[in-house]
Amino acid sequence: MSNSKILVAQGGGPTAVINQSLTGLVLEARKQAGMTVYGALHGIRGIVNEDFVDLTGESAANLEGIAQTPSSALGSTRDKPDLKYCQEIFKSLKAHGIGSFFYIGGNDSSDTVRIVSEEAQKENYPLRSMHIPKTIDNDLMINDHTPGFPSAARFVAQAFMGANLDNKSLPGIYMAVIMGRHAGFLTAAAAAARVFPDDGPHLVYVPERVFNEESFLSDVKRVMDRHGRCVVALSEGIADEKHVPIATKLMTTVAKDAHGNVELAGGALADSLTELVKTRLGYKRVRADTFGYVQRSFFGCVSDVDQREAREAGAKALQFALNEKRDGSVTIHRIGLGEYKVDYRLSRLEDIGGKTKVMPDEFITASSNDVTDKFLAYLNPLLGSGVPVPYRVQGAKVAKILNKA
Amino acid sequence: MSNSKILVAQGGGPTAVINQSLTGLVLEARKQAGMTVYGALHGIRGIVNEDFVDLTGESAANLEGIAQTPSSALGSTRDKPDLKYCQEIFKSLKAHGIGSFFYIGGNDSSDTVRIVSEEAQKENYPLRSMHIPKTIDNDLMINDHTPGFPSAARFVAQAFMGANLDNKSLPGIYMAVIMGRHAGFLTAAAAAARVFPDDGPHLVYVPERVFNEESFLSDVKRVMDRHGRCVVALSEGIADEKHVPIATKLMTTVAKDAHGNVELAGGALADSLTELVKTRLGYKRVRADTFGYVQRSFFGCVSDVDQREAREAGAKALQFALNEKRDGSVTIHRIGLGEYKVDYRLSRLEDIGGKTKVMPDEFITASSNDVTDKFLAYLNPLLGSGVPVPYRVQGAKVAKILNKA
Repeated sequence: MSNSKILVAQGGGPTAVINQSLTGLVLEARKQAGMTVYGALHGIRGIVNEDFVDLTGESAANLEGIAQTPSSALGSTRDKPDLKYCQEIFKSLKAHGIGSFFYIGGNDSSDTVRIVSEEAQKENYPLRSMHIPKTIDNDLMINDHTPGFPSAARFVAQAFMGANLDNKSLPGIYMAVIMGRHAGFLTAAAAAARVFPDDGPHLVYVPERVFNEESFLSDVKRVMDRHGRCVVALSEGIADEKHVPIATKLMTTVAKDAHGNVELAGGALADSLTELVKTRLGYKRVRADTFGYVQRSFFGCVSDVDQREAREAGAKALQFALNEKRDGSVTIHRIGLGEYKVDYRLSRLEDIGGKTKVMPDEFITASSNDVTDKFLAYLNPLLGSGVPVPYRVQGAKVAKILNKA
Repeated sequence: MSNSKILVAQGGGPTAVINQSLTGLVLEARKQAGMTVYGALHGIRGIVNEDFVDLTGESAANLEGIAQTPSSALGSTRDKPDLKYCQEIFKSLKAHGIGSFFYIGGNDSSDTVRIVSEEAQKENYPLRSMHIPKTIDNDLMINDHTPGFPSAARFVAQAFMGANLDNKSLPGIYMAVIMGRHAGFLTAAAAAARVFPDDGPHLVYVPERVFNEESFLSDVKRVMDRHGRCVVALSEGIADEKHVPIATKLMTTVAKDAHGNVELAGGALADSLTELVKTRLGYKRVRADTFGYVQRSFFGCVSDVDQREAREAGAKALQFALNEKRDGSVTIHRIGLGEYKVDYRLSRLEDIGGKTKVMPDEFITASSNDVTDKFLAYLNPLLGSGVPVPYRVQGAKVAKILNKA
């Protein structure tokens, strides 16, 4: 590293462990004598506006508390910068004599790091630009998985464990819409809720496959005929064969976010599917939830594996910045064939930035309405220790006396 | 008790600790020599249909596992029986020689127990009929609070802790609709999420107060002017001055459940409020969730105080059945003025059944948009141990150099 002043920022949607990466980076940096650590508030917007805080003297106890706190402790932004914006970022970093810039975020953030890196090279300014992975969507290339996903997946699995028990207790149809515009990993995590053979979710629909309303209805009917109840997990991003999201198809008015993306967060998809199932199949007890922000921000459901890896990804970023002579993105790789184990590598920014990984075919069943055992084998070690286990009454049935029913 | 065969059933909406009461009852019953314990599947419907399982030999390890499992292990029902239905219940209990009938449920279940009790008395059949309290709504008379509420309240508080952090990270307006048709206790629990002075929820609307759209909009604007962000908790049951639920007011089509109640579970209220705020106040980043079933069924967020009390309520029901010469409902009472402590009493069924407790005036601020410190003092001991605590970055601001913004 060219000098001893570094800056860290957090971008995009918060996760349960993004502050683990922040803490890992800051603690690692403080092992270096005389290193100053700045944090930019609200991501790259904070860099442009010079909204910096000095994290060098942050107490270790407070940092550990922050590590356990979900959501970006430095604040985040949805700004997706163009070249001019990135030049402003670089100007600010240069003005403050920053030697290394660390951005914790998803594929958009990675792309920002790439452009800033190029700007620095153009001006021959000795800046180290590093991306630290984070996203509940699990959609970063190269990575086996991304920090934030395991904890969100655990939330989804535990929510479906409860939803399945609730549905078993009061039978009917229960559907829940889960975050995931293009990648279905988080929705697929609902399948980890199954313990007993008749446990839900009985159907899982991800955006990697065309969603056909007729197939969906016949799937639901088949499960109802078999179990007398049905639990369904669906991605918010499910779309028809023309790539039209089912959400927009069924919505009367369509809202768009700052990036021009259709907003899929509201309850309209869930409510429309309820209506569809009631009208077409005639079942009475049909309920649908949209998990919404709680699935990424709930304070109290975290994977300890995710915590450790997010912490390590932050620390590794600092080590790579010190020891490697190139910019890049920290990536997580699963190694070996036995016990779950990962290592961390420095990958090229252009291989991550702006690209989206989706679920491989081998993770989705041929029927397009469920995930495979291979996916569950991939997911299970990520969920961490202490995942709750449901128990059932085992007692034998008592012989009837009145025999009316 | 007239004989040594008892039956237990679970009614209404599941909770995180309803199986603690089941386990408490069964373990207490097994201390009695030669007692047989039946469980009815799916509540009173299972009684009428003689769908019984024998719990007498259930292993203690399995019972402890069941106790930790949310949702009714025996299955539940939404059936609200009339006199004829209750006579069928009594016939079945009589045919199987049941000496004591225990029903774990809310105020409807309590009323069922009362009618069954009266039928037994009419026929001079020595049946002990006992109600064990359960409801996340916390709306049972006489009780200081009801098993199930503390755990659901903790879920809501932790969800709002996360939502507040998410909203602080990416500022805007966030609203969440919480279960509660007539009683606002669960919505009010969102206020327990606050730690720092600017933490949300900044506004809390309960069904005990008239919801006025204009007041709501000016409340939101005031919070936005002050904090640049706004987190709002609302009950699904909020209604206007003519008692018309805001949900139905804003919905185009209205669904009704088996009891003829308007279904408030869909996302329409949240979506309509989002639209209202966007249109009338012009803010861009406005999001709203409906917590839905996850708030009552999530597997992995429970209050240990709630667990202990639900367990004890089940055990006390058996003890009261053995030692008191009357039917009744187990009620929880807070005693003393110092450290949190409760005791359990046997109250009259007619004082609980079919009645609804709502939040007392002293728990709601005069402004009708928040709860009082008195409510938080009431709630806090119920949430149990290990409630997470958020931490914030403390570092000093760095002086600007470019000073563009």
